[in-house]
Amino acid sequence: MSTRHVWRLARRPAGSIVTDDFRFGSEPIPELCDGEFLLRVRYLSLDPAQRVFIGDQEQFLPPVELGAPMFGLVVGVVEKSRKEGIAVGTLLSGAGEWADYIVSDGTGFTELPTFPGISLAATFGTFSLVGPTAYFGLLDIADPQPGETLVVSAAAGGVGQIVGQIGKLKGCRVIGIPGGPEKCAFVTEQLGFDACIDYKSVNVGDALDHLAPEGVDIYFEQVGGPIRNAVMERMKMFGRVSVCGMISEYNVTHADTQPSYWWAIMMRRLTVRGFIFDDYRARFPEAEKNLAAWMQSGQLTTRQDIRQGLENALSSLQDLYSGRNFGKLLLEVTP
Amino acid sequence: MSTRHVWRLARRPAGSIVTDDFRFGSEPIPELCDGEFLLRVRYLSLDPAQRVFIGDQEQFLPPVELGAPMFGLVVGVVEKSRKEGIAVGTLLSGAGEWADYIVSDGTGFTELPTFPGISLAATFGTFSLVGPTAYFGLLDIADPQPGETLVVSAAAGGVGQIVGQIGKLKGCRVIGIPGGPEKCAFVTEQLGFDACIDYKSVNVGDALDHLAPEGVDIYFEQVGGPIRNAVMERMKMFGRVSVCGMISEYNVTHADTQPSYWWAIMMRRLTVRGFIFDDYRARFPEAEKNLAAWMQSGQLTTRQDIRQGLENALSSLQDLYSGRNFGKLLLEVTP
Repeated sequence: MSTRHVWRLARRPAGSIVTDDFRFGSEPIPELCDGEFLLRVRYLSLDPAQRVFIGDQEQFLPPVELGAPMFGLVVGVVEKSRKEGIAVGTLLSGAGEWADYIVSDGTGFTELPTFPGISLAATFGTFSLVGPTAYFGLLDIADPQPGETLVVSAAAGGVGQIVGQIGKLKGCRVIGIPGGPEKCAFVTEQLGFDACIDYKSVNVGDALDHLAPEGVDIYFEQVGGPIRNAVMERMKMFGRVSVCGMISEYNVTHADTQPSYWWAIMMRRLTVRGFIFDDYRARFPEAEKNLAAWMQSGQLTTRQDIRQGLENALSSLQDLYSGRNFGKLLLEVTP
Repeated sequence: MSTRHVWRLARRPAGSIVTDDFRFGSEPIPELCDGEFLLRVRYLSLDPAQRVFIGDQEQFLPPVELGAPMFGLVVGVVEKSRKEGIAVGTLLSGAGEWADYIVSDGTGFTELPTFPGISLAATFGTFSLVGPTAYFGLLDIADPQPGETLVVSAAAGGVGQIVGQIGKLKGCRVIGIPGGPEKCAFVTEQLGFDACIDYKSVNVGDALDHLAPEGVDIYFEQVGGPIRNAVMERMKMFGRVSVCGMISEYNVTHADTQPSYWWAIMMRRLTVRGFIFDDYRARFPEAEKNLAAWMQSGQLTTRQDIRQGLENALSSLQDLYSGRNFGKLLLEVTP
């Protein structure tokens, strides 16, 4: 094994990502130095925020530099090691390059926890990002109470499916907003959501008026745009909005043209709060313990949408922004 | 005493309030029924939200009906009583009509607390609305920490002056945004704010860049419009915005045209939260105890702007919306 395959950022996308924004190629794997190891990547996590990392808007971290490898969360197996304490065969996850082989000094990597009865894909897919996002974004940011109405956008996606199920465990009435009849059936029939609004076929506001005539206590925001507007107009007194993402606005150059709802925030005493999962890293063990217990007891189902082959990383990522994923999107890079 | 003077709403204002929107007249005082009392109004509180009560936007309470008496917070002395437990001479405060004499069954009225060394005007002016608004709006909504930068708009107004002083007591660095050099001197020299931005003479954003180059931890929002925008653009990570009011937008028909800052809320993990003082009624004793102690020890100064004569209620209220008040605006209705 002397070469690897890697995706590099060729230019910043103008609007939606297109093929020429990236370069996919092969290159020699450098010799390991002392303190480094070689990771064979098993899975790459594809997440909406990756569009943000390659833009030039305000963002969580410094953006990916032009010519640099694209990065995302990965899990892999150590194949060679010159780093003390990292044995060959160890399973590590963390932020890594879009590549089949990664040389690292271990910065940002941790051992992936393992749980009896939960597959590697489900463990990586759930515990690396979407699980803690859903867990803290719902429980800590929005403090759901029994009997409250919780609306979840992107409801069949990696985060949304978990948010809705935790909401049910906490006694909420859960309304999901996914796109398409198949996803609607999934969240109501498989995941136990109380109701579903297929935003591709009905008017979200009208549907909410019918399903939640008294309004919405908690909105788990992942999409921005007209869906957010429809929910914000129907927030109840003392409602909470957990601002997790706004995927419909990631490809837009000037996104800040949506209504503000400052008036509603004041009059209805709403709380609107942003977060990312990484803010809660110190409390990850709490989320892992509870999520794993719910999964093992069958109270929490996590669906992964697993694609094959590193060469399909870009087309798979593009699918996220048009809603063509169904569950947490993962790419199996090597078997 | 057989007649009273009263202000009634003649029509809903289109934009700024004008004289013809109200009628000021006299009318017979009805005979008291059993369970009623006659209150002679000493002071009427004039507050920004009163513009909201006479509009047809979404608001805290049902709006004032056309032809009905205008209302606001009042304090008065019971002159006659046919209500058990309410003795002549009792000092009562609550939501009442814009009138010199009010017949009431007591709904919404409570005894005004009295504190040694604090005048009636200061007690009513501070404890009926602006004190609890400032106290809970800062401490409960924004949780100020020592060393944090707190920005207060409408800083010389009834609420703003108290917010800034509580911020100082909690160890914050306090920047006030009032209008005009006299108010600027007041908040820095009399109230001990660390810095002041006179929005009428300088660019608020540039001034913030100079005074708070690392950004703003807490914004106490009372004004809306461009001042809010300038502060929102400079909020720090994990900042909190206490949404108390937006006076610059009360006279505007379609207010929801300001930037939303959803992106900043997400990326910087901001908390934006609306409230009104009345949400905290069960905790008023806590606020009263602490505010009174600070006032009695000289750590908290509250400035009232006291006008004379019920006939001047409307012109005094209009002054609020052009910033021509200086401190908590009160009208002395009877001596």
